[in-house]
Amino acid sequence: MKMIAGGVTAAKGFEAASAAAGIKYQGRDDMALIYSAAPCVAAGTFTSNVVKAAPVIWDRELIAAGGPVHAAIVNSGIANACTGEEGMRYCRQTAEEAGERLGIPADSVLVASTGVIGFQLPMDRVREGVRLLSEARSDSEAAAEAASRAIMTTDTVNKQFACRVDADGCEVTIGGMAKGSGMIHPNMCTMLSFVTTDAAIDKELLQKAVSAIVDDTFNMISVDGDTSTNDTFVVMANGQAGNRPITEEGKSYDAFCEGLRAVCRALAMALAGDGEGAGKLIESRVEGADTRENARILAKSVITSSLTKAAVFGCDANWGRVLCALGYSGAQFDPDKVDLYFSDGAKEILIFTKGSAADYSEEEATQILKSTKVIIRADMHMGDVSATAWGCDLTYDYVKINADYRS
Amino acid sequence: MKMIAGGVTAAKGFEAASAAAGIKYQGRDDMALIYSAAPCVAAGTFTSNVVKAAPVIWDRELIAAGGPVHAAIVNSGIANACTGEEGMRYCRQTAEEAGERLGIPADSVLVASTGVIGFQLPMDRVREGVRLLSEARSDSEAAAEAASRAIMTTDTVNKQFACRVDADGCEVTIGGMAKGSGMIHPNMCTMLSFVTTDAAIDKELLQKAVSAIVDDTFNMISVDGDTSTNDTFVVMANGQAGNRPITEEGKSYDAFCEGLRAVCRALAMALAGDGEGAGKLIESRVEGADTRENARILAKSVITSSLTKAAVFGCDANWGRVLCALGYSGAQFDPDKVDLYFSDGAKEILIFTKGSAADYSEEEATQILKSTKVIIRADMHMGDVSATAWGCDLTYDYVKINADYRS
Repeated sequence: MKMIAGGVTAAKGFEAASAAAGIKYQGRDDMALIYSAAPCVAAGTFTSNVVKAAPVIWDRELIAAGGPVHAAIVNSGIANACTGEEGMRYCRQTAEEAGERLGIPADSVLVASTGVIGFQLPMDRVREGVRLLSEARSDSEAAAEAASRAIMTTDTVNKQFACRVDADGCEVTIGGMAKGSGMIHPNMCTMLSFVTTDAAIDKELLQKAVSAIVDDTFNMISVDGDTSTNDTFVVMANGQAGNRPITEEGKSYDAFCEGLRAVCRALAMALAGDGEGAGKLIESRVEGADTRENARILAKSVITSSLTKAAVFGCDANWGRVLCALGYSGAQFDPDKVDLYFSDGAKEILIFTKGSAADYSEEEATQILKSTKVIIRADMHMGDVSATAWGCDLTYDYVKINADYRS
Repeated sequence: MKMIAGGVTAAKGFEAASAAAGIKYQGRDDMALIYSAAPCVAAGTFTSNVVKAAPVIWDRELIAAGGPVHAAIVNSGIANACTGEEGMRYCRQTAEEAGERLGIPADSVLVASTGVIGFQLPMDRVREGVRLLSEARSDSEAAAEAASRAIMTTDTVNKQFACRVDADGCEVTIGGMAKGSGMIHPNMCTMLSFVTTDAAIDKELLQKAVSAIVDDTFNMISVDGDTSTNDTFVVMANGQAGNRPITEEGKSYDAFCEGLRAVCRALAMALAGDGEGAGKLIESRVEGADTRENARILAKSVITSSLTKAAVFGCDANWGRVLCALGYSGAQFDPDKVDLYFSDGAKEILIFTKGSAADYSEEEATQILKSTKVIIRADMHMGDVSATAWGCDLTYDYVKINADYRS
């Protein structure tokens, strides 16, 4: 497995485009297209929120139907959530417009939206945007980057990663993009992420890989504990790599999963580190847990604790808040057995052991917390299961961004 | 039932005191005493956090043992949590010192701590504090108020309430105090709250009343989603009212419960409204739910949503975040059936109905959100069960307070 440059156009046969449709933002691209002339199998996971945005319902049904998928149309101005029947009609109209422009069936077009909840899409602008996208599409690296920028909302950096894996002697490429900065506490998948691959792979196996990998990547990040109405993660596989189709588990499937996991993990970490207002990525590693579920619960509890997040922002080694967050997670453990470490990736110090504070230097701890990546490692000494979760610090800017998001 | 002035000395036979022991704060009282010469039955609920502070363990065992209780000693400088064996020893020593000074058994003395986690108590100062408390105790209203101030940490106002109820023709008084501003997401009870009553009541019935009432009051508030290591709620009943002892459910028990509920509810709302950095109390009312559990889950999800809290801070009627928070709560419902209202207590407007935005005035909504009490009411139209939860807005000051709490 080798990470390479690029995003959704890294795999063979994929094109991308972006366009300024003026849906909410002015003077910047706010729509994106992913397109494959060759039909794709698609797999996805979507928000577990009871309140599901219209495009989530559209995509879920489309993927469940199992027909070939050719394209995805994304806008970053209006979420098209809580929009009733009208919102569903707009999804269909968007797909129909794209189908006509690209010469493909409307039911091969995924749609996705992100932005403010409760407003209806201006369909004339969406239609014009689809026209611009269909004319601008290209398989260049620049097109992929422009698409990854067009789907940003409060994101401060665009997020795209790609890799190559060897599947049975054949080079397979996997590339993806993601957006999301607030309302990030995925429970099935993140806000919006699209991954393309030229692998030839069974739809069922692709879905299996997606479900397993989402659990360790997108589902292990949190910015604010709010699970969005629009969470969407879709992988499109068009089979253009020429590999012997992956129809069963084995070496090729494992290689593909390794690559897909690497891309998803990089995208998930990028989402957490670019959380609204965030200055630091917090990585919470839990080791020595008794079960996988407990390891995951404990790791996530630390990165969702507002008090821990605020302490990291303030470079205050207030480790009591970490212990407290482990304690209320819902997982059982013996506090007297926990070893707690802080690290900046280069230097690690023991903070808490045998039920009380270790003999550490407060200055060293503060120094570590000044890093842009802070690693909090807890060894529970109960078993041999580990889990990692990613979050970010809680800053003035998070409050600022969310106190006047709509204005 | 009638609310009256006063706090923990409102009921007959209770004395209180405060003292400046210099445990963490200088120039203010940081220790408090509640004392009854007549023996009390006591009931309590404590944090569900796996990491329990030493005084929580001490009090839980003392109440479970079931012997008479005479006093509670509280300090507000150091939490005595994550302090190992030494922390437990300090609880015992505090109780012994108080026992000696007050002429009561050490195992009739409750202890409670709140403050920074991970530090050991300076026992010489605690002992001196206990001496000062035992000498200063009084049954005056001023003593109760001073005690309620002494247990504050980041609280900005002291919190005490009292009421009178009629138990079988006899006047029974219930009065209490509470503190707590951050790390407030009680799961059993709130940070620290003590209620005294002169009712004569069975220990088992008292515990039953406490457990039921805590569920609708202290367990329905949240400031930041962090469940403390020190949550303690204790009711002490000394039987000095002269009522016929309440030994079974019935009219007297119901009257007592009504009074206890009123005091607990007032204390809980005061805690939520005085959340760290908070400028507004948010009341989330869920009506028409199918089960009590779902009503509670839905109501709490709204007041714990960081995005909703930040929107209320910014007076932004971003109702999509409320729908979103209901949606990820874990309770099932049909979004198209939900009616959502915003109110400031005087004026209420319909915001969302039949799956999309109602035709409301944005200016009116903003005006409502400028109130210091914002009521968010959701009618789920699924049944007839209601629940109410209380929280506060998320402000710059919350981040500020928690970024440098220890410094």
